[in-house]
Amino acid sequence: MIQMTLIQIDNYGPWTVTPSPKAESDLQILQAELYADLEQQFAARGGLVFFTRFDNMLAISNNISIEDHKHIQKSIGNRYPITISMGIGAGNTPYDAQYNATKALQKYGSAQSPKRKEILAVDSIAENGFVQIAHIDINGITKKLTDTVSAYDTFLFVNKVYQILMDELFKKGALIFFIGGDNFMSLCNGVKTNALLKILKIVDEELNIELKAGVGKASTAYKAANLADLALEAIREGNTSSLVHMIEEKEMIN
Amino acid sequence: MIQMTLIQIDNYGPWTVTPSPKAESDLQILQAELYADLEQQFAARGGLVFFTRFDNMLAISNNISIEDHKHIQKSIGNRYPITISMGIGAGNTPYDAQYNATKALQKYGSAQSPKRKEILAVDSIAENGFVQIAHIDINGITKKLTDTVSAYDTFLFVNKVYQILMDELFKKGALIFFIGGDNFMSLCNGVKTNALLKILKIVDEELNIELKAGVGKASTAYKAANLADLALEAIREGNTSSLVHMIEEKEMIN
Amino acid sequence: MIQMTLIQIDNYGPWTVTPSPKAESDLQILQAELYADLEQQFAARGGLVFFTRFDNMLAISNNISIEDHKHIQKSIGNRYPITISMGIGAGNTPYDAQYNATKALQKYGSAQSPKRKEILAVDSIAENGFVQIAHIDINGITKKLTDTVSAYDTFLFVNKVYQILMDELFKKGALIFFIGGDNFMSLCNGVKTNALLKILKIVDEELNIELKAGVGKASTAYKAANLADLALEAIREGNTSSLVHMIEEKEMIN
Amino acid sequence: MIQMTLIQIDNYGPWTVTPSPKAESDLQILQAELYADLEQQFAARGGLVFFTRFDNMLAISNNISIEDHKHIQKSIGNRYPITISMGIGAGNTPYDAQYNATKALQKYGSAQSPKRKEILAVDSIAENGFVQIAHIDINGITKKLTDTVSAYDTFLFVNKVYQILMDELFKKGALIFFIGGDNFMSLCNGVKTNALLKILKIVDEELNIELKAGVGKASTAYKAANLADLALEAIREGNTSSLVHMIEEKEMIN
Ligand SMILES: Nc1nc2c(ncn2[C@@H]2O[C@H](COP(=O)(O)OP(=O)(O)OP(=O)(O)O)[C@@H](O)[C@H]2O)c(=O)[nH]1
Ligand SMILES: Nc1nc2c(ncn2[C@@H]2O[C@H](COP(=O)(O)OP(=O)(O)OP(=O)(O)O)[C@@H](O)[C@H]2O)c(=O)[nH]1
Ligand SMILES: Nc1nc2c(ncn2[C@@H]2O[C@H](COP(=O)(O)OP(=O)(O)OP(=O)(O)O)[C@@H](O)[C@H]2O)c(=O)[nH]1
Ligand SMILES: Nc1nc2c(ncn2[C@@H]2O[C@H](COP(=O)(O)OP(=O)(O)OP(=O)(O)O)[C@@H](O)[C@H]2O)c(=O)[nH]1
Ligand SMILES: [Ca+2]
Ligand SMILES: [Ca+2]
Ligand SMILES: [Ca+2]
Ligand SMILES: [Ca+2]
Repeated sequence: MIQMTLIQIDNYGPWTVTPSPKAESDLQILQAELYADLEQQFAARGGLVFFTRFDNMLAISNNISIEDHKHIQKSIGNRYPITISMGIGAGNTPYDAQYNATKALQKYGSAQSPKRKEILAVDSIAENGFVQIAHIDINGITKKLTDTVSAYDTFLFVNKVYQILMDELFKKGALIFFIGGDNFMSLCNGVKTNALLKILKIVDEELNIELKAGVGKASTAYKAANLADLALEAIREGNTSSLVHMIEEKEMIN
Repeated sequence: MIQMTLIQIDNYGPWTVTPSPKAESDLQILQAELYADLEQQFAARGGLVFFTRFDNMLAISNNISIEDHKHIQKSIGNRYPITISMGIGAGNTPYDAQYNATKALQKYGSAQSPKRKEILAVDSIAENGFVQIAHIDINGITKKLTDTVSAYDTFLFVNKVYQILMDELFKKGALIFFIGGDNFMSLCNGVKTNALLKILKIVDEELNIELKAGVGKASTAYKAANLADLALEAIREGNTSSLVHMIEEKEMIN
Repeated sequence: MIQMTLIQIDNYGPWTVTPSPKAESDLQILQAELYADLEQQFAARGGLVFFTRFDNMLAISNNISIEDHKHIQKSIGNRYPITISMGIGAGNTPYDAQYNATKALQKYGSAQSPKRKEILAVDSIAENGFVQIAHIDINGITKKLTDTVSAYDTFLFVNKVYQILMDELFKKGALIFFIGGDNFMSLCNGVKTNALLKILKIVDEELNIELKAGVGKASTAYKAANLADLALEAIREGNTSSLVHMIEEKEMIN
Repeated sequence: MIQMTLIQIDNYGPWTVTPSPKAESDLQILQAELYADLEQQFAARGGLVFFTRFDNMLAISNNISIEDHKHIQKSIGNRYPITISMGIGAGNTPYDAQYNATKALQKYGSAQSPKRKEILAVDSIAENGFVQIAHIDINGITKKLTDTVSAYDTFLFVNKVYQILMDELFKKGALIFFIGGDNFMSLCNGVKTNALLKILKIVDEELNIELKAGVGKASTAYKAANLADLALEAIREGNTSSLVHMIEEKEMIN
């Protein structure tokens, strides 16, 4: 079981235009700082947050208690002009977990209701669960694109890769998030490395670009991401012949 | 003429894995804070930055001098573990501007060369130019999606909208960036409101969702974004019958 | 036993002037953000940091493991242009704890040695210790000073209060830090409320100003500070007749 | 004439304890981030902010227009849970400037009135003024104190230096602020280098410690601080025999 938390800014849309539209630069700074802040607070407890739509963020929260969620929620409320509500859900697939988290929160009213504020809605908690993360990266993007074509063309290309990965992983109940550069993180509990390899091949066939994926499996997102990074480095350094390589947390194997 | 600046982290890929892969949460915090910081510094001078790929960001920089760019570059170098290089370019279309900015920087060596550091490469500066920004927003996303389907499903949907907008605007030399929620900002100097309306219709036909676009035209990005917001509010409040509405800076009209 | 951590920026003096003096505004931003960051990371684990001299900060770290310290140290190293070394020490008085923490770190070389980097020096850890914090506040500063005299005159006055409190608390092995406004936090394990009351009276006699002190005693700094705040509110609301009031963590009393 | 701005958080005291006392760590993070933010925004316009009491900060604002102040004020209001009011004043001495700035703001009501919000009170603006800053630093603090005695003892010593400097500079209408480490910045328009030298000697006689002061004189705080740094380096490197050295902006000398 993977545990996910949906973090939603309360009644944010109306706030951005009251009393008159706030400067877009201020909103961008606010959103980026809120994301960095939540990342810091979840990571300190073994979690990982993805910026998603910025007003709605998804986090892996295995091992993070309801008490900890409350603490984070209060800390944000104390330091920002907005408040956040959260939904927590567990599931066998990441898709199910975020689905359950969303449904739990939706029961408390609309994201744009002025009445719904600082809700912590719990559907389910994952006890003794695990997190599987694939860190997916484009091979040689620097030489092929960044150093050669225009910055926006590279950006468009990375988005095309993203779109295919989204579509294919969705079929497996897996989620994927862009994390900057040419990198993606897929939450893919239950997806076999072979299935991942097939998906990377689909991208290669459609866009003529090779990808690689380091996969980590561990009791928390923090550790799983770290193992995924090590697996990716193993591929990069040629220590494994495949484009997909998985490392599991030692305690979990036994 | 619109002026754009490409901001590129120097030799970032190798840094992220030296001496061993850095925790992804730390990289996410670093990237988000760097973006927020640059947004603050460009906005203080009338500009606007888009996070793009985070290691490569694009900014509108009309009215921002080379001296100011140097100041920003130095300030980042003083406060972060990484440095940034920048390319500045002007063009009749935003695509051309960023193209020229990229080419100027690429001349100084690879994004992953340890030798290329804190470069400020100038192709061209836009004197007396202007900025046209379309703030594009989905109608009623809260009721239709956020409050109804799962957070990830809404996210997927927003990305589908993004993909079509990217493809269609590209044909006009216009750029588009997701700015959070259900919002996009298109840099679209030279694109007529009628052409924008057609693009919104294409999205509606393909995905069955209505969009609206407030357009601002001004001497700086900061002002253009502000006018775009006001135009969007005019549509939202029913003060204009069309789904695309444009407001120009007063001084520019005369 | 209280446990304290000395956080020291490595080789900071020379860095600020290499290759030429860095803009003071950049250093101020860097220092304030580093402090905010460490505060966040220590607070997430039950601790509390005081900015002290900014290049040398003191934290209460009861219940924060060596592993956690390493995690924080690495996270700072990943996101700032500077690194930090830390010393950890326990003691019956806060003075002794910080003394032991300092001595442990000093053994590894000079604060301005380029060779000493990211050291974690452990003198001692406080198992089952406790933290006593007095939150000291000036009565009615708004009416008496802020609204009446110039901002700098108020500032000078607050510093005079600070100086007397420093001198008097020092005699008891207690530390004190300015935390903004008209507020001070004293780490005062082992100091009786009666002794605190006498010190407040000395200030009143010398400067003709009444102070109040809420005291909290708990297993972590986070909780002790919270109880101190509640005790201060009890005085402010007249729920206690004395100018010093103490609340202890429930579990500790039994 | 030097121009100063008093920045005051509106109705902050009551906010910190409503509905119940907020965690001190959250307040510390909020205050430090607000300060860093204001520093960034003032510095982008040639100014410099000192944290002072954190709820009341003093800034040098020569060359920063009322329009710019409004922009900064609004940007803070958009991104923080609190708002700020400001007073602007000019004077021949820094003391007078901050005095005028304070008086202008005080006219609008109490710092703790819920009615007084986001005020921008202008007493006077300094046209063609100048800023004189002395960057004062302790000689050899690392060897003498940081590496030898405990962190808190060094801190106490630096505060004793601070107290004497405050008292002596006050007599000249000059202000002084601790800026971290063993460093102070004095705003000292109109004070001769000789007078500064005498003050450093007083400290030496009372505390047996040598100080040095680099002095900068320029049209903005940003430039004056920079020249002060260069002057300090000139002393440090032995390029001047005196412990006080002044550099003036070229344009100003002619
Ligand atoms: N978020 C994140 N981004 C990374 C990481 N590693 C690299 N990147 C990004 O990816 C970009 C490209 O770097 P690389 O992937 O090393 O470059 P490449 O040319 O594709 O080289 P190879 O992947 O080794 O073939 C960098 O600029 C970073 O933005 C990481 O661990 N996390
Ligand atoms: N970056 C940015 N995001 C905004 C802005 N206004 C709204 N949003 C985002 O858009 C999301 C949805 O808000 P709205 O667009 O007001 O909601 P809606 O249900 O689509 O309502 P209508 O657009 O009025 O039909 C919010 O949660 C914000 O994330 C803005 O000016 N800038
Ligand atoms: N760091 C910190 N500062 C506080 C706290 N409470 C108040 N302050 C600061 O203290 C300043 C003065 O507020 P108060 O102490 O409420 O005002 P006062 O006029 O002295 O009123 P009384 O203390 O009730 O007599 C505020 O502007 C804040 O800067 C707190 O819990 N922590
Ligand atoms: N804010 C700020 N702090 C500085 C600056 N330069 C040094 N410091 C601080 O001062 C501390 C001591 O550094 P130095 O003054 O170089 O050390 P020192 O041993 O006194 O050496 P000398 O001054 O050269 O005799 C550093 O840790 C910094 O905190 C500066 O330009 N601005
Ligand atoms: Ca790559
Ligand atoms: Ca919308
Ligand atoms: Ca008070
Ligand atoms: Ca010194």
